[in-house]
Amino acid sequence: MTAFQKLQNLQKDNPKFLCVGLDTDILKIPKSLGTGLDAVLKFNEEIIEATKDLCCSFKINLAFYEQYGAAGMDVVLKTVEKIPDHLLKIADAKRGDIGNTSTAYAKAFFETFGFDSVTVSPYMGRDSVEPFLAFEDKLIFLLALTSNKGSENFQRLDCEGKPLYMHVIEQALGWTAADNLGFVVGATHADELAEIRKIIPNNALLIPGVGSQGGDAKATMQANGNAPAVVNVSRAVIYASSGNDFAEKAREAAENYGKVLSV
Amino acid sequence: MTAFQKLQNLQKDNPKFLCVGLDTDILKIPKSLGTGLDAVLKFNEEIIEATKDLCCSFKINLAFYEQYGAAGMDVVLKTVEKIPDHLLKIADAKRGDIGNTSTAYAKAFFETFGFDSVTVSPYMGRDSVEPFLAFEDKLIFLLALTSNKGSENFQRLDCEGKPLYMHVIEQALGWTAADNLGFVVGATHADELAEIRKIIPNNALLIPGVGSQGGDAKATMQANGNAPAVVNVSRAVIYASSGNDFAEKAREAAENYGKVLSV
Repeated sequence: MTAFQKLQNLQKDNPKFLCVGLDTDILKIPKSLGTGLDAVLKFNEEIIEATKDLCCSFKINLAFYEQYGAAGMDVVLKTVEKIPDHLLKIADAKRGDIGNTSTAYAKAFFETFGFDSVTVSPYMGRDSVEPFLAFEDKLIFLLALTSNKGSENFQRLDCEGKPLYMHVIEQALGWTAADNLGFVVGATHADELAEIRKIIPNNALLIPGVGSQGGDAKATMQANGNAPAVVNVSRAVIYASSGNDFAEKAREAAENYGKVLSV
Repeated sequence: MTAFQKLQNLQKDNPKFLCVGLDTDILKIPKSLGTGLDAVLKFNEEIIEATKDLCCSFKINLAFYEQYGAAGMDVVLKTVEKIPDHLLKIADAKRGDIGNTSTAYAKAFFETFGFDSVTVSPYMGRDSVEPFLAFEDKLIFLLALTSNKGSENFQRLDCEGKPLYMHVIEQALGWTAADNLGFVVGATHADELAEIRKIIPNNALLIPGVGSQGGDAKATMQANGNAPAVVNVSRAVIYASSGNDFAEKAREAAENYGKVLSV
């Protein structure tokens, strides 16, 4: 089964759109879990256990682990192992480089760390993205219109009659014949999301920006309809409580988001 | 001393422009070094030892190490420790994400791994780049016009009267008051390099694409003049020989590039 089919299965009956983002910050987790990276792993395990029946995906933000060097990357490996196999395991990495380097990144995430999906930056063009797309059973989320304020700097520039992010979407559609190409479109741009869905009604979307970043969950789902999508919420779920009841409160938050993120 | 000042010192008298790229591939190093990651570290150490008086910088391509997980990242740490402190230590990472994530990446490279320079992708805009620029004593190389064929897909799109890469350069110049902003401009675009130097005569440039990628070293130096620049050569130096004389041949290749990369 490909990663895209996995997502389709999760969104057939009683579809789940919530993706829980494991942007785990060592300074924000309950002190009762201890200190250091063991505590980060323990935190991730408890969050996964508490929310795995409420979401379609977990997304690991690599930066939060890479900042602790080799030991941090070991926590990534062990966290991925804890995610049930029927859920989509996304490496939020935003990599992209010349061919042989992108191939090495793809191997890192898909083979070494065991993810079945990765976020990729389009800036370097076709030959930087194709090495990821060569993994046809995986799911690639190419950055199109991101959720942050900086998305206005370049992504919205008018390039030959349409915004840069539309060029990214339209060109990339020609780079793979498989169903393994998705895009990142922020929940902070619900109007553009609706427009984008007209062009790509069936491609998977990774939609960040709901929760702490202020994206409107309801407007997002109206714009997306029941097309394949993972709507990421990180901080607003995993840090719902800073006390010992963090897992219980994360579950409550995930339940609440699950209700709003429905069609 | 800031990283930019370090580069200026290396290019004052008898300037050195060569950067040796440690894109070390476990399958391409001499069998006599053994197998596995210990051999990669040994290879890097010998290349550094053989070329350190001929170059201004070493650039580590993170993908080649990340593909081996935590153990690979440990080799990065140990390789950086072997680079003499008066040389520029570049993390070729091409990261870039929303604010708190970019901060974590900056900490990873500058604090945990001990680099003093990093490559950053501009696609997500100002708030994805500023967390790197906040490290004023480090040197940020923002992707502008990369050396690969895919640079034509988006970087050269005509956006409101000029190519996207010029928007990146012009906007980014307003994002820091320090001298810590540089750009990546590929050696495969010597004409554009000359045009770019008219706009940013003093910013540091990282110029990849000489050697295996086909960029012309002489044309590159004519376009750059004696402005601060590191010209990266990876495969054509480190794999100059696949035999036991790899370090000696790498030194010869570095010497030859050193002669061409002069003003």
